[in-house]
Amino acid sequence: VTGAALHAELAQLVGAEHVLAADAGSPYNSDASNRRELRGRADAVVLPGSAREVEAVVRWCYAHDVAMVPRGGGTGLTGGAVPTDGGVVLSLERLRAVRELEAGLWRMLPEAGVSTRDVQRLARENGLFFGPDPGASEQSQIGGNVATNAGGPHALKYGVTGAWVTGLEAVLAPGELVQIGGWASKDVAGYDVKDLLIGSEGTLGVITAVRLRLLPAREAQIAQVAFFATRAQGCAAMLAVTAAGIEAAAIDFADGAALAHVAGGYPGEVPAGAGFALLIEVDGTHEQARAHADEVEDLLGRDALAIDRAPDASVLWRWREGFNGVLSGVRGAKVSEDVSFPVERLQEGLERFEQLAAAQGLSSCTFGHGGDGNVHATVLVDPVDEAELQRARELGAELFALVGELGGSIAAEHGVGWLKRGLLESQWDERTLALHEQIKRAFDPKGLMNPGKKLARVPGAAS
Amino acid sequence: VTGAALHAELAQLVGAEHVLAADAGSPYNSDASNRRELRGRADAVVLPGSAREVEAVVRWCYAHDVAMVPRGGGTGLTGGAVPTDGGVVLSLERLRAVRELEAGLWRMLPEAGVSTRDVQRLARENGLFFGPDPGASEQSQIGGNVATNAGGPHALKYGVTGAWVTGLEAVLAPGELVQIGGWASKDVAGYDVKDLLIGSEGTLGVITAVRLRLLPAREAQIAQVAFFATRAQGCAAMLAVTAAGIEAAAIDFADGAALAHVAGGYPGEVPAGAGFALLIEVDGTHEQARAHADEVEDLLGRDALAIDRAPDASVLWRWREGFNGVLSGVRGAKVSEDVSFPVERLQEGLERFEQLAAAQGLSSCTFGHGGDGNVHATVLVDPVDEAELQRARELGAELFALVGELGGSIAAEHGVGWLKRGLLESQWDERTLALHEQIKRAFDPKGLMNPGKKLARVPGAAS
Repeated sequence: VTGAALHAELAQLVGAEHVLAADAGSPYNSDASNRRELRGRADAVVLPGSAREVEAVVRWCYAHDVAMVPRGGGTGLTGGAVPTDGGVVLSLERLRAVRELEAGLWRMLPEAGVSTRDVQRLARENGLFFGPDPGASEQSQIGGNVATNAGGPHALKYGVTGAWVTGLEAVLAPGELVQIGGWASKDVAGYDVKDLLIGSEGTLGVITAVRLRLLPAREAQIAQVAFFATRAQGCAAMLAVTAAGIEAAAIDFADGAALAHVAGGYPGEVPAGAGFALLIEVDGTHEQARAHADEVEDLLGRDALAIDRAPDASVLWRWREGFNGVLSGVRGAKVSEDVSFPVERLQEGLERFEQLAAAQGLSSCTFGHGGDGNVHATVLVDPVDEAELQRARELGAELFALVGELGGSIAAEHGVGWLKRGLLESQWDERTLALHEQIKRAFDPKGLMNPGKKLARVPGAAS
Repeated sequence: VTGAALHAELAQLVGAEHVLAADAGSPYNSDASNRRELRGRADAVVLPGSAREVEAVVRWCYAHDVAMVPRGGGTGLTGGAVPTDGGVVLSLERLRAVRELEAGLWRMLPEAGVSTRDVQRLARENGLFFGPDPGASEQSQIGGNVATNAGGPHALKYGVTGAWVTGLEAVLAPGELVQIGGWASKDVAGYDVKDLLIGSEGTLGVITAVRLRLLPAREAQIAQVAFFATRAQGCAAMLAVTAAGIEAAAIDFADGAALAHVAGGYPGEVPAGAGFALLIEVDGTHEQARAHADEVEDLLGRDALAIDRAPDASVLWRWREGFNGVLSGVRGAKVSEDVSFPVERLQEGLERFEQLAAAQGLSSCTFGHGGDGNVHATVLVDPVDEAELQRARELGAELFALVGELGGSIAAEHGVGWLKRGLLESQWDERTLALHEQIKRAFDPKGLMNPGKKLARVPGAAS
């Protein structure tokens, strides 16, 4: 079923005004990565208005062998929400109800299309706190965050998105709306199907609503930026904070090359000779946050070139959130790979990535969530220089091999999507790779749920 | 392969001294539940000395169609580690190495047979903290705790065992030692196979070692016991603590019937007319813990008959840990079901269980981890009164139906094991039940890994 017939059938299910054509320029054909290889072409875009309508769409598509690409805010960077091989883009954007918000019980039940920013704001307005803070929170949606198990800086102390989810509502193939888990945080009655769906990137089912467990609001946060002359000093400082028993809420970093570009936007003065920077946030009660901040300052003061304490943490975080835009602008585009290293090997990982990039003649920099060993390994590129883009792809392959060697992960918080299909092969054993594929077949025997995404292995590809 | 031939083959793999016969009285034939229906008869007990030996045993058994029952400390209560249908009991007790303990990085890699108490102690001796505190920690083993996703009082603030696990080493069918996850807390490269194994009770694989992420030691804990005249007041008090934004480390409870039996061992004075008690622990810095304890006292003081603050929290926890023994002794035995209710329906759940027990002419009481809605719903029985035991079983069925009605879980922290096989059917949708079974088949196509345990449905049973 394609073309007008497909549109007509979908219109029956959700109303004609909620079935869109996906012209070449449609935003539903790409994501936030701006990678040219990540442009797709949807056969149709369908915007169901309720979980029951999602169920109807999935059931119809499954019965008619039509592939589906579930989509949240489209802020992904690996093509997970892109119709790389056609099919129906199933956008959750109209599922915007907050079905339940029980402030006294620290919980919220938003539908998939509620923006992450709204989840955070609603929590805050009710004296509560939702920890995950992936980038682009205004546009990104909670369903997509759960489907990708999104992270962010505060995952260091507060865990990734999945750690906040006690239950899910989802539509599973061949089209059944199910409830998985409830509000109880203790539940060992069945295998952990909830955590299988979390981070499955729409390949196992379509998440329509999530049960979130919140925490009481934090009384105070203090953010500090510490500048160091060398990467070695900066990485040692991160380990020193942990070794001192300070449970920082976030420890982000930028290396010297990144710093050179983002220094201009720094709300203060970057000291001469700065070759590495840490953004460290501590929290708790006012007294506790202050005590931790003082401790951090004492601990890092000897080696740091300078340490700035912001009266308002959000000023420093706004600077940090601007990194992506600034770095993309330097040469017109950037290619950034999201990986993790064990924290004690972070320095080695950063150094070797820099060397690999230099050997390819590429301009690299690194930044990310250092306390978690989570690196956005970046090269600044000219988006129309095909030879350079090809070298960037080769560098990516070298980086993933390095990650395997050092015991990290080829996908820390941005998902596998389409870009990283097959890379799991370098990270997992043969038997677990096979299980990954068997799980997919159990959930989606026809292979219609976001086909081609989060593949453990790529048939026919060299391993 | 059975009898002497089986022993001889296993002896080849692990040494003759590490293959035991399981005589009728062998402890390997039962668990800590003392339920008569939970007596099995192992064909052999094998004690491998390393993960590689576990792999060899699993490979041999799988090739020869011999069922395996993985076993930790044997402290379970639902028969998960009992050879209910024969087979080889595969005890992990000799895997006692702590392969890595990096205090400065807050992590530990114990093998499966390390006792939970030793994990807690090693963490403490290194200025760190391991949160999960299931009962019987001296005898129970970390591998078994992970395999059952064990809980305990402090799961309220610190999560169940699985929340502390960043990676696993396990032997999967048909006999392959694999590494799943590493030290990185952010890793979305593959489906969450780690969390599938956590809580799978040995039905998907045999856990041989676990990567635990620890936290800095808590500076102070203060435990208080608050007595109330009525259950309604006690349950309201629990909700009031949460609604006040106090993140208690633990909120345990005992109802009036339980209290009547355990009052004698209370290290203080139980006020006259006490019909419900809460044990509330708060923690943090000394100042913070004191502030929270004061807040709890202010909040509950109006309704409480008395509130005791222990100078040493462990005194109150020792009293709490004695509940099982005391209650078992009243009439010779108890039948206790581990379930959870949504916290706001806890009072209703407790009341209706009491009514159901009374209708069966049974002597009931309830206690457990109230902040999590986790109830150990108990009847005190004469262990040789078959009619009474039968009524207790009927009450169990009524309780599970009640749990389903109120939206709780039929298994909160003690696992499904053999006792609760088939009960998932009342809690999950048809499609997710089928997925539970398909996951089992993907991991264990021959059905030799702890057969008969954690079954979603029981073939032929009335639903």
